[in-house]
Amino acid sequence: MPNEEMVVTPWKVSGEIDYEKLIQEFGTQPITDELLEKIKKHTGELHLQLRRRIFFSHRDLDWILDMYEAGHRFVLYTGRGPSGPVHIGHLVPWIFTKHLQDVFGAKLYFQMTDDEKFLIHPEFTLERTNRIAYDNALDVIATGFDPKRTFIIMDSEQGGILYRLAVQVAKRITFSTVKAVFGFEESSNIGIIFFPAVQAVPCFIESAITGENTPCLIPAAIDQDPYWRVTRDAAPKLGYYKPAQIHCKFLPGLGKGGKMSASLPETCIFTTDPPEVVDRKIWNAFTGGRPTAREQRLHGGDPSICPIYYYYYYLFEDDDSKMKNLAEDCRNGEILCGECKLKLAERVKRFLAEHQRRREEARNRIEEYKFKEP
Amino acid sequence: MPNEEMVVTPWKVSGEIDYEKLIQEFGTQPITDELLEKIKKHTGELHLQLRRRIFFSHRDLDWILDMYEAGHRFVLYTGRGPSGPVHIGHLVPWIFTKHLQDVFGAKLYFQMTDDEKFLIHPEFTLERTNRIAYDNALDVIATGFDPKRTFIIMDSEQGGILYRLAVQVAKRITFSTVKAVFGFEESSNIGIIFFPAVQAVPCFIESAITGENTPCLIPAAIDQDPYWRVTRDAAPKLGYYKPAQIHCKFLPGLGKGGKMSASLPETCIFTTDPPEVVDRKIWNAFTGGRPTAREQRLHGGDPSICPIYYYYYYLFEDDDSKMKNLAEDCRNGEILCGECKLKLAERVKRFLAEHQRRREEARNRIEEYKFKEP
Repeated sequence: MPNEEMVVTPWKVSGEIDYEKLIQEFGTQPITDELLEKIKKHTGELHLQLRRRIFFSHRDLDWILDMYEAGHRFVLYTGRGPSGPVHIGHLVPWIFTKHLQDVFGAKLYFQMTDDEKFLIHPEFTLERTNRIAYDNALDVIATGFDPKRTFIIMDSEQGGILYRLAVQVAKRITFSTVKAVFGFEESSNIGIIFFPAVQAVPCFIESAITGENTPCLIPAAIDQDPYWRVTRDAAPKLGYYKPAQIHCKFLPGLGKGGKMSASLPETCIFTTDPPEVVDRKIWNAFTGGRPTAREQRLHGGDPSICPIYYYYYYLFEDDDSKMKNLAEDCRNGEILCGECKLKLAERVKRFLAEHQRRREEARNRIEEYKFKEP
Repeated sequence: MPNEEMVVTPWKVSGEIDYEKLIQEFGTQPITDELLEKIKKHTGELHLQLRRRIFFSHRDLDWILDMYEAGHRFVLYTGRGPSGPVHIGHLVPWIFTKHLQDVFGAKLYFQMTDDEKFLIHPEFTLERTNRIAYDNALDVIATGFDPKRTFIIMDSEQGGILYRLAVQVAKRITFSTVKAVFGFEESSNIGIIFFPAVQAVPCFIESAITGENTPCLIPAAIDQDPYWRVTRDAAPKLGYYKPAQIHCKFLPGLGKGGKMSASLPETCIFTTDPPEVVDRKIWNAFTGGRPTAREQRLHGGDPSICPIYYYYYYLFEDDDSKMKNLAEDCRNGEILCGECKLKLAERVKRFLAEHQRRREEARNRIEEYKFKEP
């Protein structure tokens, strides 16, 4: 794996991810202790994903907090490219976004880019990606966002405001720029070439509706950063604030080397997986442990390469001291992989039972969450 | 003028237009006598603009008539790029389109491309082009289209269907194609690169709404042909018929060499010009006549280079024998330019008085004509 070249684009993430290097390459800022202190003033106890630097990088997060302290509310914006079912890794930034919505009382614009997924995948129809968008919306709603302050934008259905704002952004972005930033080529279709303007729209939708320039904070995985680079360039030309961002890491998959791939369903736990599938996937997962119990007891395991460990770390063990103990016990050979897996499986199943219950309830509530042009 | 190179693109028309050459360069078909006979079966007396070959070229017009004869209705589609006020030249294809609507009982989709004009003109705001679109819509309505069968599409306001269909077209068009067809460059903005997909939408909107593949006929000036070339390539991939087209020539301007330019308002008669302005513009127009009355009587004039003559020919003298007499009288020096101009001015003023009355009435009817997503 370490030899596999790191690729992080909005459409492909592969190889071993070096997050420090991404900060340098993308030109973002690391989340410092000082910044965490600033956040803590507003949120009280820091969220797990901040304490553990799962959200590790940002642009202008300090600025948006200054604005907030000066009395300017901000809106949140995140989204989903609906190409298939939602897995637990997708929930990571959503859970954090819900936390931000709760503590800052912020509106959330959630964009479902069924247009993008249609334009990128040669074999997909728009009906298909739109159907997936509705399915994925159930997971968004099940995450627990406030229905009064959450607006799901279904790109392919959206009223004129989406296109109207998109052309305004588009006029400020050239083909050279999107070629350089996204690697588009002469053979790229003109829909995907235009799409960066569409993905920019939710940053400005609140400002456009209210007529008041409103800061926007985007919590999302770092692979989406290229979109915000072009959006940030266009923003001042449109009279809007540049959107601030906070970037998270990727939840490793259950395969060797943390590989997670939609084409390898055993490497990820989908939100609709039944308990026996969760048991099986976790039981079969690659770990940082030794081949035999004897060796594990003798030499200990390596949590730093263990997907099971990362599942606890990202989502399923909120207590930092317990987390620390788990890592030590593993390294000292005081816990075996089987035990660790069984405990995780119980927690994942408990989490999914609740998520699936809310997901079913969400079926009748999609309209309530959908953004409607005022 | 003859030395000025002919340029005919959707955004620029200049030089002396060689319509025969355009047919060859664009790869369209001339309108033959045989085709006119076929049309006549349905329309009765041929419209002036067909008899005089103002509509001179087509694609698949024979096919759409065959379809019609086999019981398949077609829809009409034309439009306007709202960059400024409407002049009489713009009315030429609209008048013909109204004729087609009347005789074939066809629905008309009329696209107002306020998005295109915003994307093309660096200094225009979308508010401005949208305001112009509403102003221009008054002229569309005043042309007399059937309100029950006419649907004005305001691009920048349109519901999701415009963007939803546009992405489906866009997926089938590459940057190489629009680069070759429209001359887009790396420095072109991504909005205008996407725009050919938007201009394609009204060809398919009836089919998309009804679920029934419906032929579409586009009457428009020939400079718009590049749009339909890319649209026709995409259509079969989307399961739709290729749109048929019928192309018209440009009404010459009042300047020397038939020049008409929005930046030279004296070269064209706007639909809102008051009578005294019409008098002045026509009186000051270039003509095919001689410098003095004596020379005119002696040598005669040349109607083939005379904008005044073409105004009669395109719009203001329906009687072919009178038209023939006028040309002969001019060539024989039996009519002087002043007389010819005064008579034309009377007709234009009479036409505009009626148009302006209907244009005012139209102010309260725009909503009635606007396309609404079902």
